[in-house]
Amino acid sequence: MFDFVFHNPTKIVFGRKQEETIGQEIKNAGYRKVLFVYGRNSIKRSGLFERITASLKKHDISYVEFGGVVSNPIISHTRKGVDLAKKEKVDAVLAVGGGSVLDESKAIAVGTLSDNDVWDFFIGKEVTQALPLFTVITLAATGSEMNGNAVVTNEETKQKYNISSLHVYPRVSILNPELTCTVPLDYSAFGAVDAIAHVIEGYFTRKEGAGLQDRLVESIIKTVIATNNVIMHEPTNYDARSEFMWTATLALNGLTTAGLKEYCFPNHMIEHSLSAIYNIAHGAGLAIIMPAWMKWYSNKKPARFERFADKIFGVQDAEAGINELEKWFSSIHAPTRLKDAHIPADKIDMIAENAASLAKLWGIDDVYSKEVIAEILHHAV
Amino acid sequence: MFDFVFHNPTKIVFGRKQEETIGQEIKNAGYRKVLFVYGRNSIKRSGLFERITASLKKHDISYVEFGGVVSNPIISHTRKGVDLAKKEKVDAVLAVGGGSVLDESKAIAVGTLSDNDVWDFFIGKEVTQALPLFTVITLAATGSEMNGNAVVTNEETKQKYNISSLHVYPRVSILNPELTCTVPLDYSAFGAVDAIAHVIEGYFTRKEGAGLQDRLVESIIKTVIATNNVIMHEPTNYDARSEFMWTATLALNGLTTAGLKEYCFPNHMIEHSLSAIYNIAHGAGLAIIMPAWMKWYSNKKPARFERFADKIFGVQDAEAGINELEKWFSSIHAPTRLKDAHIPADKIDMIAENAASLAKLWGIDDVYSKEVIAEILHHAV
Repeated sequence: MFDFVFHNPTKIVFGRKQEETIGQEIKNAGYRKVLFVYGRNSIKRSGLFERITASLKKHDISYVEFGGVVSNPIISHTRKGVDLAKKEKVDAVLAVGGGSVLDESKAIAVGTLSDNDVWDFFIGKEVTQALPLFTVITLAATGSEMNGNAVVTNEETKQKYNISSLHVYPRVSILNPELTCTVPLDYSAFGAVDAIAHVIEGYFTRKEGAGLQDRLVESIIKTVIATNNVIMHEPTNYDARSEFMWTATLALNGLTTAGLKEYCFPNHMIEHSLSAIYNIAHGAGLAIIMPAWMKWYSNKKPARFERFADKIFGVQDAEAGINELEKWFSSIHAPTRLKDAHIPADKIDMIAENAASLAKLWGIDDVYSKEVIAEILHHAV
Repeated sequence: MFDFVFHNPTKIVFGRKQEETIGQEIKNAGYRKVLFVYGRNSIKRSGLFERITASLKKHDISYVEFGGVVSNPIISHTRKGVDLAKKEKVDAVLAVGGGSVLDESKAIAVGTLSDNDVWDFFIGKEVTQALPLFTVITLAATGSEMNGNAVVTNEETKQKYNISSLHVYPRVSILNPELTCTVPLDYSAFGAVDAIAHVIEGYFTRKEGAGLQDRLVESIIKTVIATNNVIMHEPTNYDARSEFMWTATLALNGLTTAGLKEYCFPNHMIEHSLSAIYNIAHGAGLAIIMPAWMKWYSNKKPARFERFADKIFGVQDAEAGINELEKWFSSIHAPTRLKDAHIPADKIDMIAENAASLAKLWGIDDVYSKEVIAEILHHAV
């Protein structure tokens, strides 16, 4: 094990109807006025908006609505949220939605307490404070409900970048698996792919010597597969939805990477370019990138890939394990090739150039040059 | 998954020499004067005391020494700590040692802010506040460094009872695996037994329907076994010590029981009587109780025990799995029968009576009557 700091102060409140406690949680924490961030109007049609505002009113929490967050949230909309939060002098942010809503809310929480443009924090400025964040999540996928990461796209520059700070861990996140039972199956599948992507980055790229983390990662992947095999046929199965929901949270809350060294997130890096340029769902992009990256990477760490093949799919060689993963992605109707997402192969150089700039920002451009990224993408043709 | 709240705000600082950061951590949190709680003078001989006080002095943290915590910490000594903390008006508690030192420190942290006798909190009074606690642990075993539990023995009444509260989670716990490299092998073994005991209680006693938690528990048990097989032959192997240390923390930080229902801790309940009466090491007592309890319990949940046998030891029936576990305890020189700890079989009724009173306090006396507990103990003869 390598040296690490693990500090995850988010309080998780998990279970049926728990969104009705959000007003109490915000009041207990001492806040009175929130920016209520959400995406589409579906939360009004479903009754969720009404249940949450009822809880806020019951506990004398006032709120300012800020809807319209899009999938792959954008910096121009984030800036509007910052302006509104400043103007209305809110003392906290309440995010209700999936990972996009949470990520944009984190950025708003940072930007509201700064005179800088909020994008500055995505290109290197250190986050030193943020408004407290409360969340009610409606999609199991990103883990944003229990970590300090936020990814936002600058739609002018086509940069999909992230901030990472202890200051944007949610204070309280409410996870009611019932809310995910109506998620369309394609987005359920993208969530499953995303959760797997979160754990395989460290699993494959780290230095050797982490028996515990290997086992935890394998436990998470096996649970993602088992629960989603049920969800695909019984979308409202509460047991499967709830087990997957908590698994997706644990997949990116720091647990599986604590004690690792020299791991990095190349699949996410390349995918960010796909979704920044083509605005596809993050999980869809990952389902395309992961098998391609694995095919490129497996001969560099054959023992790792043989273990993966054996432990997850019970097959005996690295290539077979990768094929099984790709087959499983297809079985849940996730795209696995660029053409499945209508991305032309002749755009690979342009995508690789975009991703290479993020590789530079992350300090992994010694391995992930534009040429290498293009080579990886060619495995997805 | 059943409804749950997961909230573990402890900051873990893990790695070589990290105890030298303790002064900085306490200062960053805004405290200036600590009660420095420890056990025996071995921390002075080893140089640990000197390194920690140097860090405190460097950051202008004053301290009041309070040594003499014993294994299976006692309420009379705890009361002395409370008196000293009140008299000296410390604003935090620093615990340096193993689980006993941490547990007594938690009780002192609670008692110092109360006019009640500190034992009142062990017999039902609600904990509503506590001094902030910082810890440097020297033994991997109890998980006390990242949870809200504390077990203390009332030596007059022979009651070994616990408190459980969010208020006594340590603010910061420093885990330097090097400090555990000199732990005598018998205590290393007791730590391994303890970590396994922490996860098997929920694994076997809970209701069905927790595939993720099953896998996490199995990951933890397999890692405990693998790392301790190394430690027994290479006590100073840093990789094994560090991996085991973090595994022992995760074994009782809320992770493996989040989302479970109707689980209970019968092995701990019965063991508390053994160590309250005979003052044996907690892990030693657990190594005696666990196989006995499993033999009594296995026919009530045969599928659970068959899974355990298969996943952990690769054997195909419940009884063989229990035998393998008992053999493994013996292989690391943990006692597995009452006589190994010089406890006479004719005292079983007296032990059972003691344990039955705790069963009543925990509300599991409907299953764990005095007669049932005696029956379990007879499996350990």
